[in-house]
Order: sequence, then C-alpha cells, then structure tokens
Amino acid sequence: MTQETHRPSPDPPTRYKLTLAYDGSAFHGWQKQHPPGQEPLRTVQGELEAVLVRLLNTPTYMLGLLGASRTDSGVHALGQVAQFDAHCPIPIERLARAINARLPNDMEVRSAEVAPPGFDCIGHVTNKQYRYRVYNAEHKPLWRRNAVFHCFGHTLDVGRMNDAARRLVGTHNVEGFAAAGHGRADTVRTIYGCEVLTDPAYPHEVHVTIRGSGFLYHMVRIIAGTLIEVGRGRFEPTQIDRILESADRTLAGPTLPPQGLCLEWIAYGA
Amino acid sequence: MTQETHRPSPDPPTRYKLTLAYDGSAFHGWQKQHPPGQEPLRTVQGELEAVLVRLLNTPTYMLGLLGASRTDSGVHALGQVAQFDAHCPIPIERLARAINARLPNDMEVRSAEVAPPGFDCIGHVTNKQYRYRVYNAEHKPLWRRNAVFHCFGHTLDVGRMNDAARRLVGTHNVEGFAAAGHGRADTVRTIYGCEVLTDPAYPHEVHVTIRGSGFLYHMVRIIAGTLIEVGRGRFEPTQIDRILESADRTLAGPTLPPQGLCLEWIAYGA
Repeated sequence: MTQETHRPSPDPPTRYKLTLAYDGSAFHGWQKQHPPGQEPLRTVQGELEAVLVRLLNTPTYMLGLLGASRTDSGVHALGQVAQFDAHCPIPIERLARAINARLPNDMEVRSAEVAPPGFDCIGHVTNKQYRYRVYNAEHKPLWRRNAVFHCFGHTLDVGRMNDAARRLVGTHNVEGFAAAGHGRADTVRTIYGCEVLTDPAYPHEVHVTIRGSGFLYHMVRIIAGTLIEVGRGRFEPTQIDRILESADRTLAGPTLPPQGLCLEWIAYGA
Repeated sequence: MTQETHRPSPDPPTRYKLTLAYDGSAFHGWQKQHPPGQEPLRTVQGELEAVLVRLLNTPTYMLGLLGASRTDSGVHALGQVAQFDAHCPIPIERLARAINARLPNDMEVRSAEVAPPGFDCIGHVTNKQYRYRVYNAEHKPLWRRNAVFHCFGHTLDVGRMNDAARRLVGTHNVEGFAAAGHGRADTVRTIYGCEVLTDPAYPHEVHVTIRGSGFLYHMVRIIAGTLIEVGRGRFEPTQIDRILESADRTLAGPTLPPQGLCLEWIAYGA
C-alpha cells in the first residue's frame, strides 16, 4: 500500500493550489463521507484524494487535502479551490494533466500551481461568486435538468428581480437567508454584487449571480428562492429589506434544490 | 390490470403521431427489450408505452406503438416520430401535456397530433436529419460528456471536412459506410445534404449535420468517423469518392460512439 512505501523526506512538503470544475450530479458533495458500516459515499474530495495519494505516493494524512467551499450534494463548480501538501516529483506545468488523466469524467483540474507562502484556501477567501440557474418555461428542461431548477406556471419579471437583487448589496446580518442550524456565531457578511441575468445562449433561463465575502448554509439557494417569489409577484422587492432588518428566515422564500447552483470562482487577496 | 378493464369500442381507433425528444444517456435505445430471465431494459419505447397503456386504458397489443427510427443505446433525439392507435378520451390539444406529466424527466413529447389518413411513421419517411457532435479540445467535455465525442490531439480542419462532406451528397450505394450485418438488401440511399459546422454557442465543438432518405446501420457514426479522419489529415477528401465507388467498409473511418449522435427531425411527404 502507498502508506508502506512512503519515505518521509527531510524537507518540508510544498503546498499546492488546485482550481477544480465538476458536475455535481453524481457526487454526494465535496466533503468525504464514510457512513459507519457502509461503503464510502462518492464525493469530490474522496475521488481527488484517491488520485493524489497514488500519483504522489503520499498518504492521506500528509496530503491534508482541503476545499475552500463544502459544496452540497448535486451542486456544481467551475472554480472550486483546493489545497494539499506533498513532495511532488511531477513538474508543476504537467501536474494538472497528470491528475486529469486519472480523474473520472465528471470532474477536472482547471489549473495547478504552487500556493503562495502561508496560503490557506479557506481562511484567505476574500470574494466568491455563485450562479443559480432557473429554467423558466412550461416544457421540461430535458438537456439541462441536472443544471437548473424548473420554474413553470409564471413568467419571471427580471426587472422586479433585479430591483430586489440590488437591495442585497452591502454589509448586513444575513441570518434571515440562512438555513436553521447554520452553526455560525458571526452572521454578518458583505454582498459585493447580485444580478439577475438572461443570456441568449441559454434560452428560457434566468440566472442569479451573487458575489460576497462568504455565505451561510443554503444562503444562495434561499436568496434565489426569494428572488423567484419577487419575480412571480408574490413578494415586493422591498421584502429583501424586511428580511435583512428582521433576520427572520420565515419572511424569505423557499430553499431551491441544489442542482441549479454552481460555485463559479473564488478570489484571494485584496 | 388495464387489459381486464379495457372494453373494445365498436369504432376503429384513431392513429396518433407524436414527436419526441429524449436524452439517450440512460436508455437502452428506442426499441423495447426484455432479455429472457431478466428485468426489461429501460428503453424509450418501453417508458412511453407504459404511460400510454395507463393513460389511455388501452392494452399494448392495441396501441401498436411504433417509432420511425430505432435509435441505439446512448443516442439522443430532438424529433423522433412515433405512432399509436387508441380511442383517446383526452382532447388532442391536451394530450402532449398529459403524457409529459407522466413521463420521466429525460424524455418529452414535443407535439401530439391526429395522424393523416393511412399514416405510416416508418414507411412514409422522405427525409431525416442527424447531427453528430465532436468536442475538439484538449480538456475534457465536462458538461457535454454525454452529448459529444471527445476528439483531442488534433485540431480538425473544418474546410477539408466540408470538402469531403459535399462529396456525400447525391444518390449512391452507401454500403461502404454501413456496419457489417446491416441486413438491408437495398443499400442505395439519397443524401440531400451534409455540412460540417461550428457554432459560437458551442465552443470547441464541430458538428456534422446530414440529411437523407434513409441511413443504414451505424451509417451516420461511420460517416462522422470518416470525416474526422479527413479533418485530422489522415484521409484526403477524395477518400469519400473511393468509399462510395468501392462500397468497401475497410476504406472508411471508425464507428464513433453513440453519445455524439442526435436524431434531429424526420420529414414526411414531398
């Protein structure tokens, strides 16, 4: 086994930063999960770790593989960031390709680089963007069914939704948009931007993009669910202000399903 | 069971024509299959028939559900055509919606109509179009992996491919482009058009579209495989003429995998 053939090196290992894309449909989220008495669940972290352990001949405990964002089951990523520590015999310019050749077809390393000194992929995040895709047509989203939420019966008013989206921008207590049991003491976050977009390349789709310093559990899915209630006329755009002022989850819309959500990018530094 | 509650009507049943779209990824093709001693395989015909039998309270043998094209396992359709016979209590303008509400998410009725008198969805086909999608980039087609063939290592020359594609147009013996065991005595078909296209909406993709009076077994996948050999420089465009003249399968390119293929439309009448 790899653990037995591993020889500790006298030099400290190098920290690497990976940018990852994955189709979340067939994963139980990012985080490794091994329910007692069962097979481990298929996760992004688990698949990536298995490849790195073999490719770099480094045991799991030394790799210390971490992801910046613990995406839920079914949630996609274009720009997840991960870090690990290893003595890597592969030149950095070939590392992404070497990992990709061993990964399953529903995930891909977009870039591999040596991390800046002291890099912490979770603690040093300054900004991240998510996109939530709503398919707003009567007929089923046959080809996009794992990438969108199907909202039918109402034509969404994108102008009203943007009026609401703008009210999210700023530094607020965002607890009214978090699932119960989010487990965070500090519920103040800064939203840098939020837009509701249509794109002719994706007919019938309405996309919510949101950038912020951080997000509480299910927060983007609840914000998207609230904006849909605005778009179909059940809420006024000013409902956003009421939710931010009251921090009352019951005033917000439903938590939309995971498959519409995609983590687009994560930024570090000023 | 439905067979027991069915009461034969004195009037002859009406023939209906359906236009169907499906994502072929999770189907064992169009045609119903029930291997001895096993569960029936999941097929498009099987799923549709199960819905029609219950919705219309008509037994399988009376429905006589037929599809115009027996698409293979993994092959997609935007415009498959099917027919069935029934005494349908549902107004025709509501029939597509009623069927769709009961179908799984990877297939959809696009239209339902009363068929013209004497309609035969197989025998009366005059023209049909297929599209074969090639993903021509080094990185993996993460989001399109079930809809394209991944061709890497060569940048395809679309101009050369179109030169070859034009040579297919006309009435020929097309047996050189058919899989062994195609089982057809008549191997003359008319190709009305064949194009190699790029579309900015699908970056990195090269699409082969082909229209004809009919196609032999695996014919579109072999034609696409031959055009790729032209596009990467292994064949000259004139190889098409040689294959048509000789009817020799060994002169053509490989059969590409099913997931890149989509049946786009089927036309009836002049």
